[in-house]
Amino acid sequence: MTRINVAVAGASGYAGGEVLRLLLGHPDVTIGALTGGSNAGENFGRLQPHLVPLADRTLEATTPEVLAGHDVVFLGLPHGASAEVAAALGDDVVVIDCGADFRLTDPAAWERFYGSPHAGSWPYGMPELAAQRGQLRGAKRIAVPGCYPTVSTLTAAPAVAAGLVEPNLVVVAASGTSGAGKAAKTNLLGSEVMGNASAYGVGGVHRHTPEIIQNLNLLTEEKVRVSFTPLLVPMPRGILATVTGKLTGPLSTDEAYEVYSQAYADEPFVTVLPQGMWPQTKSVLGSNSVHLQVAVDEEAGQLIAVGAVDNLAKGTGGAAVQCMNLALGLDESAGLTTIGLAP
Amino acid sequence: MTRINVAVAGASGYAGGEVLRLLLGHPDVTIGALTGGSNAGENFGRLQPHLVPLADRTLEATTPEVLAGHDVVFLGLPHGASAEVAAALGDDVVVIDCGADFRLTDPAAWERFYGSPHAGSWPYGMPELAAQRGQLRGAKRIAVPGCYPTVSTLTAAPAVAAGLVEPNLVVVAASGTSGAGKAAKTNLLGSEVMGNASAYGVGGVHRHTPEIIQNLNLLTEEKVRVSFTPLLVPMPRGILATVTGKLTGPLSTDEAYEVYSQAYADEPFVTVLPQGMWPQTKSVLGSNSVHLQVAVDEEAGQLIAVGAVDNLAKGTGGAAVQCMNLALGLDESAGLTTIGLAP
Amino acid sequence: MTRINVAVAGASGYAGGEVLRLLLGHPDVTIGALTGGSNAGENFGRLQPHLVPLADRTLEATTPEVLAGHDVVFLGLPHGASAEVAAALGDDVVVIDCGADFRLTDPAAWERFYGSPHAGSWPYGMPELAAQRGQLRGAKRIAVPGCYPTVSTLTAAPAVAAGLVEPNLVVVAASGTSGAGKAAKTNLLGSEVMGNASAYGVGGVHRHTPEIIQNLNLLTEEKVRVSFTPLLVPMPRGILATVTGKLTGPLSTDEAYEVYSQAYADEPFVTVLPQGMWPQTKSVLGSNSVHLQVAVDEEAGQLIAVGAVDNLAKGTGGAAVQCMNLALGLDESAGLTTIGLAP
Amino acid sequence: MTRINVAVAGASGYAGGEVLRLLLGHPDVTIGALTGGSNAGENFGRLQPHLVPLADRTLEATTPEVLAGHDVVFLGLPHGASAEVAAALGDDVVVIDCGADFRLTDPAAWERFYGSPHAGSWPYGMPELAAQRGQLRGAKRIAVPGCYPTVSTLTAAPAVAAGLVEPNLVVVAASGTSGAGKAAKTNLLGSEVMGNASAYGVGGVHRHTPEIIQNLNLLTEEKVRVSFTPLLVPMPRGILATVTGKLTGPLSTDEAYEVYSQAYADEPFVTVLPQGMWPQTKSVLGSNSVHLQVAVDEEAGQLIAVGAVDNLAKGTGGAAVQCMNLALGLDESAGLTTIGLAP
Repeated sequence: MTRINVAVAGASGYAGGEVLRLLLGHPDVTIGALTGGSNAGENFGRLQPHLVPLADRTLEATTPEVLAGHDVVFLGLPHGASAEVAAALGDDVVVIDCGADFRLTDPAAWERFYGSPHAGSWPYGMPELAAQRGQLRGAKRIAVPGCYPTVSTLTAAPAVAAGLVEPNLVVVAASGTSGAGKAAKTNLLGSEVMGNASAYGVGGVHRHTPEIIQNLNLLTEEKVRVSFTPLLVPMPRGILATVTGKLTGPLSTDEAYEVYSQAYADEPFVTVLPQGMWPQTKSVLGSNSVHLQVAVDEEAGQLIAVGAVDNLAKGTGGAAVQCMNLALGLDESAGLTTIGLAP
Repeated sequence: MTRINVAVAGASGYAGGEVLRLLLGHPDVTIGALTGGSNAGENFGRLQPHLVPLADRTLEATTPEVLAGHDVVFLGLPHGASAEVAAALGDDVVVIDCGADFRLTDPAAWERFYGSPHAGSWPYGMPELAAQRGQLRGAKRIAVPGCYPTVSTLTAAPAVAAGLVEPNLVVVAASGTSGAGKAAKTNLLGSEVMGNASAYGVGGVHRHTPEIIQNLNLLTEEKVRVSFTPLLVPMPRGILATVTGKLTGPLSTDEAYEVYSQAYADEPFVTVLPQGMWPQTKSVLGSNSVHLQVAVDEEAGQLIAVGAVDNLAKGTGGAAVQCMNLALGLDESAGLTTIGLAP
Repeated sequence: MTRINVAVAGASGYAGGEVLRLLLGHPDVTIGALTGGSNAGENFGRLQPHLVPLADRTLEATTPEVLAGHDVVFLGLPHGASAEVAAALGDDVVVIDCGADFRLTDPAAWERFYGSPHAGSWPYGMPELAAQRGQLRGAKRIAVPGCYPTVSTLTAAPAVAAGLVEPNLVVVAASGTSGAGKAAKTNLLGSEVMGNASAYGVGGVHRHTPEIIQNLNLLTEEKVRVSFTPLLVPMPRGILATVTGKLTGPLSTDEAYEVYSQAYADEPFVTVLPQGMWPQTKSVLGSNSVHLQVAVDEEAGQLIAVGAVDNLAKGTGGAAVQCMNLALGLDESAGLTTIGLAP
Repeated sequence: MTRINVAVAGASGYAGGEVLRLLLGHPDVTIGALTGGSNAGENFGRLQPHLVPLADRTLEATTPEVLAGHDVVFLGLPHGASAEVAAALGDDVVVIDCGADFRLTDPAAWERFYGSPHAGSWPYGMPELAAQRGQLRGAKRIAVPGCYPTVSTLTAAPAVAAGLVEPNLVVVAASGTSGAGKAAKTNLLGSEVMGNASAYGVGGVHRHTPEIIQNLNLLTEEKVRVSFTPLLVPMPRGILATVTGKLTGPLSTDEAYEVYSQAYADEPFVTVLPQGMWPQTKSVLGSNSVHLQVAVDEEAGQLIAVGAVDNLAKGTGGAAVQCMNLALGLDESAGLTTIGLAP
């Protein structure tokens, strides 16, 4: 087949770098323009030294001219910047946005959490959720889900869809630091984060909260409420999400496990672990896998599900490539792996 | 005053080592016998090289003869071993057990979680909880709380005591690895835990669950239920606990903050951080401090409180020394600090 | 072509797991028997949860019967165990030993460092070294180099071969913990290694020392001497080696850089970084790459070269797969990547 | 006695924070002004949350007026800023500079490495080195040594002073990240440094190189040369330095050990570990200790000494407090400990 010519805008950041890491292993892709902002003009090998085959490239400026002529353009841009770049690209170009701009369908939710006008919404890049896969096939514009919403949604979904729990969930998710991006900030220095666990964005103020709720509302007629608490833990990659929900009736762990196993039986990238074995982020490092497990605490009257993803892989770049595959009618798994890098 | 002669049984482990680290800075204490099990006879400097002043000591066997003649004996022993050792010590000796054996008052709870006969219960070494401080003054036997129960209880207590939340809590606590002890296990190898977050003991099966419930039941007439999910995160020390509870009525974050501030206004080792600033374990590293913060999520209808402790310090050895101080009528803070080691 | 049927003995360890991680991405390989020692009979998914496609396999016992009938057998066994297993396999089977047994050619060196009789030597699996690549083509028995020797040799080789330095080198190499294996040991616990850098095996006693010397002696007529000091640093994977050698004459950094660049110009897996950019292990995480840089310190009269590898990938499993490719006449890079997993 | 009133300029940084952490435990000190630059006016509790007793303080501007009236002023300022601040303080005030400005005695060395005019030199705050202790007693201006020079010098000194090695040393030192300071930089982000070891400043260009040479030149009549290679490893604190030097004659490890033991027999903060036990940074975490060990590699003809310090404690803030004690005629160990925080 003709090779697909792909550009990445924001190629020097973590999302862009991860998209490129995966595309370099994709059988059908040729890497076209690599663009960036303040460091445009620099040697790409110095910016992303792990991407050896691109070491001789130069980062170009993110302009319509540079991005023109590609079949697919991935955007790894700061919030608010995607709409203008996308508008300059033709309708025949597949544009896959790793940022938040087009994820939320509700303008009010967008404005409350982001404080800026709503740019609109695009097909949502989570094939495993309800009817999303169908909408991604042939799509020309795709919004890649946030990292926390990816794992939180997929960890909660079977219980919510099957009505095992009341739609009032407690999600606590421990994340590595790369989710916070590559911009230099004192609180993200290695000296600060190593040996340290902290909470942030507590009390319903984290911007990924409405996205989780939006996703779960597709699965039940009841109005879903979510208390979402993100934690920062000392590792570069990975999110471990715990979802706790009050049982709606008697339920055993075996029964819950069966619901989860059935829910994802046909999903290539979701693994419900052997019963009694709990997810760890290291098992999904660099992979497109989601690892899940569930238990019922009869004393507490709660169901607890735990999920692990690599925030940069399945949580961002892997989902982006998976969406490209669907959009172009390729094998959904092309260029992706279920195998993590451990230990 | 006469110096207090102190022995530590289990001195080569993490709990024993931490008790000794603190006692070496205690103005009134002389370190007596250091005892252990399989490595008795070894040079102590090779076992705990950070405790330089004890480098020339030898680890002795844990026998009644070796432990005799001390004013205070700290026990850092495997579960089930404390009762026999304590029985051999006179009633005038202060025995402070860092293990679990005498924490639970309910024999049924003990047997369900530990699977062995209940040894009984001792005064519970959490001075900040309800009327415990009074019972610790002059006590001859003290059970030091578990690390998770310490931070979980103190993080939840003001909300439970004031009836701000329904007594059906979700506790998710991220812990460093030293809480799992110094025995060699493959899943605790550095290669396994670095770069990794995992869940374990999910579904109400962790042994610290009944202890948290027992503590909170002292604060309300309603029956408390707790869903407790422990996470292992890649750091040697520290626990960050998140407590989420459904609001019993309208409440603002300001009001919740006021309740927390008042509850701990007189506690020397509990700091409710400036509003909006969230706890991090690094701030309490090596200290006897508990750092707390609280928020209300009105959309979700939940209160979220977060607490941080050093699991080995305030979570074990620091609490043990604090209890010794109370038992002997010393300044409760002697040998302890509120200052953490950061960065 | 016919698919190659491959067995891995020691499949539950780190070396075996890494070989399998790579083989699962190899276009020509079918995974046959997975064998182990004490945990034979266990579900493989519980032993290596990151290897999702093998989750339903069972670890078998390491016996001649189980290993029979494969085209290639990889050995990831404790020292001393490989000879017997290899002897039971036919001469037509390609046997690739990730252990040390067949690396050293000098029986005296073997006996001095390992304290057991010398089993012999096999073609040495470092294609980048002198004439080794030719000897690996079509080989039926291959000894995979040690992780420290891999990076130390390739970092020192151009300077030694070109006579830029006196053959009396100082090698200090900082390693992640996985090089020490998966057996549970107290000093390798996460609690011990996180936040900690330590030295070990200092003074010429580390077993990899004679292997480094053996390699460098292929490059010069002078007798090479090496002071090798290994450091353990808190990361699961990666080795960063610094090689310092006294200059034999006037030399600029530019000249040294040119020598290094030329030496590896045709090597697919060795990258001399852009001048002035120093290696970091993260750039080679999970990849088969070696990253190098060199500088001359005129004041000190020394040349300093620095190299980075992933000890499990190019340092063990990646080299093993590279050797298999050479032995079977496949593309040397099949199943391997130069791209690291960062951040 | 009258309490000593102490100010800290640069109190929001890592050096200033560490000085304060130690001063808060000093029996004779009252903490006066806390000053800073861009964040002057902020609540100190938000800047250094681990320093609980100072939580209600406000960071003031670094002006002569604010710093006036203290007995001792510690400076933790960017390079080049100390001279002006010190000049504005009276000659009766003890000024202790944690920065580099007054460490080097040779203007040419200063200008070559720092590229700015030489401000002069002050008594050098390494009491363990040659005759320095005497010069620190009663001193009014003290330059605290750099972190790398502290451990490199003390690790090399006995071998150099006793002529065991040729004065042409190879120093490779692995450091935690806090030595690089608290200013936000992309390459110091947790995402970059965790799971990563890297080299930097290779080839004689690191600014601490001339300071190490200056120190060792006090110990021998020969001209000392040092190849210094710093490594960054993933931990917040600690430096592990390896010093390798060519033997000047036959020497056994026992003999070298005896030389080291004798050299530091009277030093309160230097511990030569039991023979065969190698230093680890964790054992000195937060302490003022230096841990050392030495071995002879007869095959290689080299002596290898290894030392560990906490770069912020003995490497900066601890040395600063030790110097204050000497300057004021206090117990040299006041407010300091030999005990590290492990695990």
